Amino acid sequence: MCVELINTGTELLLGFTQNTHLPYLAAQLATRGLRITRQTTIGDDPAEMRATLTAAIQRADLILVTGGLGPTSDDITRDIVAEVLQRPLRLDNAVAETIRERFRKRGREMPKTNLVQAMVPEGATVLPNPNGTAPGLAIEHAGKNIFLLPGPPRELRPMFETYVLPRLSGAPVDCRIFRTASLPESQVEQLVAPALADLTGLELGYCARPGEVEVRIIGPRAAEAEPRVLAALGAHIFSTGHERMEDVVIRGLAGKTIATAESCTGGLIANRLTNVPGSSAVFLAGYVTYSNAAKIRDLGVREETLKKFGAVSEKVAREMAEGARQRAGTDYALSATGIAGPTGGTAEKPVGLVYIGLATPTSTHVQRHTLGFDRETFKFFVSQTALDMLRRELFS
Amino acid sequence: MCVELINTGTELLLGFTQNTHLPYLAAQLATRGLRITRQTTIGDDPAEMRATLTAAIQRADLILVTGGLGPTSDDITRDIVAEVLQRPLRLDNAVAETIRERFRKRGREMPKTNLVQAMVPEGATVLPNPNGTAPGLAIEHAGKNIFLLPGPPRELRPMFETYVLPRLSGAPVDCRIFRTASLPESQVEQLVAPALADLTGLELGYCARPGEVEVRIIGPRAAEAEPRVLAALGAHIFSTGHERMEDVVIRGLAGKTIATAESCTGGLIANRLTNVPGSSAVFLAGYVTYSNAAKIRDLGVREETLKKFGAVSEKVAREMAEGARQRAGTDYALSATGIAGPTGGTAEKPVGLVYIGLATPTSTHVQRHTLGFDRETFKFFVSQTALDMLRRELFS
Repeated sequence: MCVELINTGTELLLGFTQNTHLPYLAAQLATRGLRITRQTTIGDDPAEMRATLTAAIQRADLILVTGGLGPTSDDITRDIVAEVLQRPLRLDNAVAETIRERFRKRGREMPKTNLVQAMVPEGATVLPNPNGTAPGLAIEHAGKNIFLLPGPPRELRPMFETYVLPRLSGAPVDCRIFRTASLPESQVEQLVAPALADLTGLELGYCARPGEVEVRIIGPRAAEAEPRVLAALGAHIFSTGHERMEDVVIRGLAGKTIATAESCTGGLIANRLTNVPGSSAVFLAGYVTYSNAAKIRDLGVREETLKKFGAVSEKVAREMAEGARQRAGTDYALSATGIAGPTGGTAEKPVGLVYIGLATPTSTHVQRHTLGFDRETFKFFVSQTALDMLRRELFS
Repeated sequence: MCVELINTGTELLLGFTQNTHLPYLAAQLATRGLRITRQTTIGDDPAEMRATLTAAIQRADLILVTGGLGPTSDDITRDIVAEVLQRPLRLDNAVAETIRERFRKRGREMPKTNLVQAMVPEGATVLPNPNGTAPGLAIEHAGKNIFLLPGPPRELRPMFETYVLPRLSGAPVDCRIFRTASLPESQVEQLVAPALADLTGLELGYCARPGEVEVRIIGPRAAEAEPRVLAALGAHIFSTGHERMEDVVIRGLAGKTIATAESCTGGLIANRLTNVPGSSAVFLAGYVTYSNAAKIRDLGVREETLKKFGAVSEKVAREMAEGARQRAGTDYALSATGIAGPTGGTAEKPVGLVYIGLATPTSTHVQRHTLGFDRETFKFFVSQTALDMLRRELFS
């Protein structure tokens, strides 16, 4: 089965926007045993789109087209597809009403231009878009399947998983993943590779992200390999699926409560925890104490400690965590104080130095790290390490 | 001039590796006034590569091919290009010696397989690679320029800038962008399009992201169009370049200070502000008051107000912003209280309802919105609207 992906959008060719559709769709299609044969990016240009679509229809069995379904004049996908397939566009009243209703809910009237989004090529099936005004379209044409999907990832992804994936046949490939934290990629490989050395035909891959290394095993022998990977990596694994670190932590906290005391992470730990639906049952309060005054006033850090050890110190991380736990009356509290950079470091306390604290009902632990990242990666890595400290405590 | 980029590599189609060549090369080519017309990703497959190259040569004046120049069996670019162009491969002794020397320097002997990297199609120019063993190749063929470049970015980039760019002629393209907040895409177009209607030949594009619509004008008449776009969109524009909303706000705060009081955004506003280097000079403290107890204890929200109007109300947003401003002793404070979902809504207060507050030295404003997004997009949109309220205040 030949699968082609056509990404439309001048902003992709200008290099302003990264094409995140390709990795996402490749991973999704892999679950059905499908692989993308060819991916093409073209601008919002009728001639290019006409030529690309015509060529793809000749080659491929399954064609995915992203982008160009919006209400503005550069959104031409719907028109060109209708033209190439010789299927006239008709106004779909139900779609029009859905779009109108979407505007009404926000107290606005639908601009007339949005009506083009309710135009549907003859014989096409409408794929609902609960996250935007542009519906997707599914078209069967000469034994081939063509799907038109909206450009914004937050609209495309739920639509793909809900309406496109179930229409695709194919046996799932056995692919298992193991997401680990707090170990470098080379060390993960040293633990995993020897344990799988005799399993020939197993496809083994590693993917390193900030604060995470994912191990991937693919093939019919994945089931046989799984217990070996679990044994080799043990508590380093925080997830074997889509669960993120913050999901695991919130799940582990069930019935307990947490507060955060953040300096260098600037609210990122709280933000990640509150990304989890239902987190309000366990997350009570967060303090972003960027200034020393805030550390003293809001968390009860002692002025003496700040003077003697400085804001970036083991002692301050400890007092921040304990202060937040006490003030918010929670079971646990996490703290972080460090130097995110790019400036603000000294010889003694360089950019990248961080202390991460965890206060529990019985004790307080502080970890010290020196990291070599840009500001935002530093913040993410620290938040990941803090959440991983709590995870190991909750699941030990 | 028609420019095509062909990226080869099965790992790109599997989605394991992000294609960073496209944005990099697009930005580089723009400095010479060149734009990529079409980008294609194909796997390490001879038939696909043959077909793609043949088609590209028919269409394009300039063709860039990345990847597949290594020493292993899946590196086939050199062979297929020689075959398609009917230019026999010859061993280039100077290239062979350079590769041999590279191995010698590291105390190793060159494996025989590396000799394929010294094979050069007849009439091609070798592009040196100081960062790897695979040299690049430049080929003029029937009036077209073809460049073969190595796949690893740290090899491709210096080679492109040193050896490819100087061979390309052309003047920079005039491309200007205008990033707006707090207006839907269709409304942005309604304001911009009529103002530019008579400027024929101007390329006009729109790109919608959560809480942002970007307007792009490209072409020789962009300079003429710019003042019209600025007049049409006015204060809705928060950036005309790479500056993000949070960068603009921190810049606007110079000499002033800010605190945050967040419920439904869970620390995201503080997190975005503290992503900006140097934000510690203006951002003093943030409060993530998820529970009612925290709102009362940390921000001085009155129990009475919570009882009478509920946590998600205009009054509570106001008391949160004023409380944070007073407690942290800042010039400004932002607040947000709403229902992020997916659960927790009622008929009276549905999921998506949010109140956003801004306390200034002279007054407090509260905006009410009803949004239809998933939890994380809701949080981002609210943070964007809050920061935009502050931006309009700072730059008014």
